[in-house]
Amino acid sequence: MTADEDATDEDAVGEETDGAEAELTHVDETGDVQMVDVGSKPDSHRRAVARGTIHLTESTVGAIRDDEIGKGDVLATARVGAVQAVKHTWETIPMCHQIPITNVDTDFDVSVDAVQLTVTVETTGKTGCEMEALEGVTTGLNVVWDMVKAAEKTADGQYPETRITDVEVLTKEKRRAENTA
Amino acid sequence: MTADEDATDEDAVGEETDGAEAELTHVDETGDVQMVDVGSKPDSHRRAVARGTIHLTESTVGAIRDDEIGKGDVLATARVGAVQAVKHTWETIPMCHQIPITNVDTDFDVSVDAVQLTVTVETTGKTGCEMEALEGVTTGLNVVWDMVKAAEKTADGQYPETRITDVEVLTKEKRRAENTA
Amino acid sequence: MTADEDATDEDAVGEETDGAEAELTHVDETGDVQMVDVGSKPDSHRRAVARGTIHLTESTVGAIRDDEIGKGDVLATARVGAVQAVKHTWETIPMCHQIPITNVDTDFDVSVDAVQLTVTVETTGKTGCEMEALEGVTTGLNVVWDMVKAAEKTADGQYPETRITDVEVLTKEKRRAENTA
Amino acid sequence: MTADEDATDEDAVGEETDGAEAELTHVDETGDVQMVDVGSKPDSHRRAVARGTIHLTESTVGAIRDDEIGKGDVLATARVGAVQAVKHTWETIPMCHQIPITNVDTDFDVSVDAVQLTVTVETTGKTGCEMEALEGVTTGLNVVWDMVKAAEKTADGQYPETRITDVEVLTKEKRRAENTA
Amino acid sequence: MTADEDATDEDAVGEETDGAEAELTHVDETGDVQMVDVGSKPDSHRRAVARGTIHLTESTVGAIRDDEIGKGDVLATARVGAVQAVKHTWETIPMCHQIPITNVDTDFDVSVDAVQLTVTVETTGKTGCEMEALEGVTTGLNVVWDMVKAAEKTADGQYPETRITDVEVLTKEKRRAENTA
Amino acid sequence: MTADEDATDEDAVGEETDGAEAELTHVDETGDVQMVDVGSKPDSHRRAVARGTIHLTESTVGAIRDDEIGKGDVLATARVGAVQAVKHTWETIPMCHQIPITNVDTDFDVSVDAVQLTVTVETTGKTGCEMEALEGVTTGLNVVWDMVKAAEKTADGQYPETRITDVEVLTKEKRRAENTA
Repeated sequence: MTADEDATDEDAVGEETDGAEAELTHVDETGDVQMVDVGSKPDSHRRAVARGTIHLTESTVGAIRDDEIGKGDVLATARVGAVQAVKHTWETIPMCHQIPITNVDTDFDVSVDAVQLTVTVETTGKTGCEMEALEGVTTGLNVVWDMVKAAEKTADGQYPETRITDVEVLTKEKRRAENTA
Repeated sequence: MTADEDATDEDAVGEETDGAEAELTHVDETGDVQMVDVGSKPDSHRRAVARGTIHLTESTVGAIRDDEIGKGDVLATARVGAVQAVKHTWETIPMCHQIPITNVDTDFDVSVDAVQLTVTVETTGKTGCEMEALEGVTTGLNVVWDMVKAAEKTADGQYPETRITDVEVLTKEKRRAENTA
Repeated sequence: MTADEDATDEDAVGEETDGAEAELTHVDETGDVQMVDVGSKPDSHRRAVARGTIHLTESTVGAIRDDEIGKGDVLATARVGAVQAVKHTWETIPMCHQIPITNVDTDFDVSVDAVQLTVTVETTGKTGCEMEALEGVTTGLNVVWDMVKAAEKTADGQYPETRITDVEVLTKEKRRAENTA
Repeated sequence: MTADEDATDEDAVGEETDGAEAELTHVDETGDVQMVDVGSKPDSHRRAVARGTIHLTESTVGAIRDDEIGKGDVLATARVGAVQAVKHTWETIPMCHQIPITNVDTDFDVSVDAVQLTVTVETTGKTGCEMEALEGVTTGLNVVWDMVKAAEKTADGQYPETRITDVEVLTKEKRRAENTA
Repeated sequence: MTADEDATDEDAVGEETDGAEAELTHVDETGDVQMVDVGSKPDSHRRAVARGTIHLTESTVGAIRDDEIGKGDVLATARVGAVQAVKHTWETIPMCHQIPITNVDTDFDVSVDAVQLTVTVETTGKTGCEMEALEGVTTGLNVVWDMVKAAEKTADGQYPETRITDVEVLTKEKRRAENTA
Repeated sequence: MTADEDATDEDAVGEETDGAEAELTHVDETGDVQMVDVGSKPDSHRRAVARGTIHLTESTVGAIRDDEIGKGDVLATARVGAVQAVKHTWETIPMCHQIPITNVDTDFDVSVDAVQLTVTVETTGKTGCEMEALEGVTTGLNVVWDMVKAAEKTADGQYPETRITDVEVLTKEKRRAENTA
């Protein structure tokens, strides 16, 4: 990422993020929701990395580990769910543009009582892909939750300890498509 | 919710959640991913409530408040995104069944530096709707993120403080369809 | 349709349509958009008929007629588009519930300079299907427009006379599922 | 738009729109429905504007106005529905290509007894975007209808006066992507 | 399946399959495509089993086996693709009704130079689910093809031996919902 | 197709298809499912042709022929289903990229007891379109099956002779976008 990232960032339509008068580019001057016009932006190589964590009971994480050692279908299904969510972001997030996703990478880190998912998305489009990475993370973690529901629920059907936390964008980069140094 | 919740819960196919040998009902005895057969379950009135929070800078939350006082399109768009995500859960979460959603309620609580979203989902189907409520919460919060991107990004396009946390299922209930007391 | 239609109509949550104080049931008491809770409504046989017209040049209508006499693919494609639009209404119209469509009938009436499309939709659900019929009509007519674009455009690519008009709901009926007289 | 618009227009595959022998480019020489091959067309900046009107009772329009002054969720939801419909046109209209939408603008004009919606769509693709603009208009107006159903229906559940009319393409423009004067 | 299967089968609207005058129920008396009206049919437990085979080189099948022994992601991804295809049949096959899928079972049989996929679908709806089973089989096998493309292609990018064959419906059953003996 | 097809083929990331050690590019070095990174590939004109056959009883094929002579809605509906399946491949096949489809051609060959469908797909993207062509063929043939269900079923609702076979990729070609000789 270079200094000109700032000047041409995908939502930077007269953007001045000085904190005093934060601007919502998805709302026009009369307060109506709108898409951001990206027609005059060049295609750029863009990359965004998002991460999040689902906290589970130790026995559930143990079952995921056992499955992973055996067949791996729990995390494989979550990977597929995350990739599909990345590709569907343009319809899930109402004001998102559809951009050509060139790569999605999903990485699970299984600890004692949690599973952390990192999703990297790359595109060569006119707008960034952090929403795609975030959708990949939250949906991927929701799929993990769905896959371990029976193991994680208490006897009366509740989830007192299951929790998704720390969903964040780690990095966001951009470089001109024809200047790939 | 009554005691027979436990015995007929939607994923409780021989479920024994004693913590010692957690069971993954979306994986069969040979480790292959599968849907859960719900063909012999009765239709029940079911309700699930999920909640989550997005942490933002104070100036961004101020802009949301101003918009809410003025036109309200930021949170209105997030409400629509949340409702649509609830209805699409059967395709977003690979092993979910499609169930007839009878009601979705979205409630935003805007504090000084965060927005909390609570989503309530009701159905009269053969399986629970907590995944629908979770999808509503995570997508609704992602839509808020998308709507305030320009306000929330630092000068070099990063999101050092934006974060989605505390995504959890608050309650889950079930009662027989013909016994609506 | 009987008198109890009025009392149990799908949106009639305390509805008083006296014209003096029209009520928007998709907006709650604080002005937030919402789905209507249909959980306590019985399943009913419901039927709605909508109709609309696309005005075209006489030569274009002649080409449709010739095609209809020959292969029929123009109107066949529009029929498929209309049926698919009916089935997708729950995702196209944000606050619509998904209901089980049991029948869709599409009827084209080709006159000298117009094509009229009537779409009948039937369901056995908890809410009416007039939005499904309207989506079928408007999408079906848009498909006709798409199929005849080259014939209908002027030399400089404009559509001075093409026009969709008179889109309306002709009838809407309901009868209890177990009382099908 | 320049004179070469005529010669390279998206459907102008040997097009001769002299009215005497109108040609249906979505039907091949043997009468079978087909997509139009756009593989050899250059990417162009394209823009289309469509407009339509929904006629409502005065009291319903009054309720929309009151909501707009208060929270604005009725028209905000219709805006979201219109934008989503624009983005989904490639799957709604069977023979449409998927094109990269760079901008969507929705403008509502609320009069005494009608709401007029104008949708502007821009793309940098190989084919025009008037179908996208039309889908935005018809779906946006259908969403308005859905949002005011309870207010607009008569006591016996009919819509004698509600009507969508005058759906038309106002303008359609194209200029080469690398020649943006 | 009992004798009354014949009389109430989902497409048997005056069906006489004597071979002399085969009837197309998706085409009405005037030759127009149509959905079949299922509004008066009772809900039944229905089950359909379809099967198909993809022929591959022995080395490719070996790679699938190795993966299956190791992580299993190739067939896990194909399972997810098959289940999703089953659930999406109502939009993939234009005249299909949407029915509530209660169970999907996918079974892969890996031989020396082929992979056979059997998909079982169960529903409690008004119409059969053989199209859902067929969509599961063909899509699941296409996913296998996609997953092994690099291994299966010749040096000049062709697939001289890859082939999907023997896609058939093995059995189709129905019993009344309230008579589950 | 030229010799450099081999070297830059869309999945050829270090590909060595010598048969001895077949490589699965949708599975990474640790066995996890992944998309293939196509970000550094140039846009190319690509074309793929796939074909398959559905075997039917002679009387059913006769009914299709009669319909084709009359209105043609059976095969027209199958054409639409095939085109839509081609456009939806990026969501049907989990690890596929979304590519801009520039052309789809569907060709039916009706013989005495079978219907053969050939689907040609063209794109100007970073990856091949054989999966799109295969999805078009299998879905188009499934639509034919759906359209002739009533004619093809035996008296007890089974399909002893209906069968889809010989689904294969006939050719696959690529040439640089700026070098269209």
